[in-house]
Amino acid sequence: MEAMTTASVDAVADQDRKGPGRPRSARADEAIIEAVLDLLSAGQSADALSIEAVAAKAGVGKATIYRRWPNKEALLIDAVTTMKGPVPEPAGVSVRDDLVALIAGMRTKRMHHYGKVTACLLPELVKGEEMHKVYQAGVVEPRRDVMRGVLRRGIESGELRADLDVELTLLMLSGPAIAQNMLRWNPAVPDEGFAEHLVDAILRGARP
Amino acid sequence: MEAMTTASVDAVADQDRKGPGRPRSARADEAIIEAVLDLLSAGQSADALSIEAVAAKAGVGKATIYRRWPNKEALLIDAVTTMKGPVPEPAGVSVRDDLVALIAGMRTKRMHHYGKVTACLLPELVKGEEMHKVYQAGVVEPRRDVMRGVLRRGIESGELRADLDVELTLLMLSGPAIAQNMLRWNPAVPDEGFAEHLVDAILRGARP
Repeated sequence: MEAMTTASVDAVADQDRKGPGRPRSARADEAIIEAVLDLLSAGQSADALSIEAVAAKAGVGKATIYRRWPNKEALLIDAVTTMKGPVPEPAGVSVRDDLVALIAGMRTKRMHHYGKVTACLLPELVKGEEMHKVYQAGVVEPRRDVMRGVLRRGIESGELRADLDVELTLLMLSGPAIAQNMLRWNPAVPDEGFAEHLVDAILRGARP
Repeated sequence: MEAMTTASVDAVADQDRKGPGRPRSARADEAIIEAVLDLLSAGQSADALSIEAVAAKAGVGKATIYRRWPNKEALLIDAVTTMKGPVPEPAGVSVRDDLVALIAGMRTKRMHHYGKVTACLLPELVKGEEMHKVYQAGVVEPRRDVMRGVLRRGIESGELRADLDVELTLLMLSGPAIAQNMLRWNPAVPDEGFAEHLVDAILRGARP
């Protein structure tokens, strides 16, 4: 987990999860994050989300939240980072399989939940440049960079064309998944086999 | 469409009340729609948007709005439809040129404005099934169907593979534009030449 504001505390929380006797504060943190995600996935916009509502839902006092997160923006970014889980590690055997695994990871069974949360966060993301930057650096770029690494490896190994536009290809792989997660843009495209079909269609134009 | 000043719209509304003046009421409608779009593109979430705020910004009374739109959802859908403009008509010469024109139309100079508006509308779209259906039928499907027509024509003419997955290709063309408009997902992909590069990359795998 690489949230900027609370990285060290997150590391502690990660260690906590391994042992049985977890401190009360880690449980409270989890309840707070879970409350944020529940409210956002229920269609509450990040704009309208109040610290009061989060505190009430998590069963903690407002002060507990403010002790841990300086403001709502930091809490929102931490909640999304938690939701996304750890940055995936590709197996590194075939470029096709790695890309399929990465795209399938964006479209898990919880994708609808994810999409709703991201959708409800969007007004905050487009309103402030600062929030957009933090979101890009903390949430988007670490995952995009894993996929970038797979594409670069494919160019080196000759599985992909030497002149492939890597940045455009990243967008071509992720954009369709984002549009389906957030907007259910094309209901005629089945979820079943989504990652395989998308990756194969893109690879058809990306092979040497 | 330029936003009217509050003063000019007040005058319009006054005249509207006195005389028949249908074109004048049409101008009030425009001011109302423009007010919705301005509020959304400023980062106001559709959730938090009130009819009071729209009325105040448009310089009309709330009753003027309710006479025309039964509820906020209907007003939001009308605003987005207006923003999108008429459904585009492809030239019908080459499939490549038609697709480039359609994608470029999604990424105009106002794209940032569009993206912000759509982003701020998303919480409403994911919250209610009804709103999502109306948005799909009124905004998404008419445009998607134009692009679908271009792809089918390409298959018939032999410009595209006979076994092309049309629905997936629609998503592969639109998803990257949506992700850039709404999230500025990959800042490393330049806006300049976006439509050409994307269409050519997809056609590379879609040709016979």
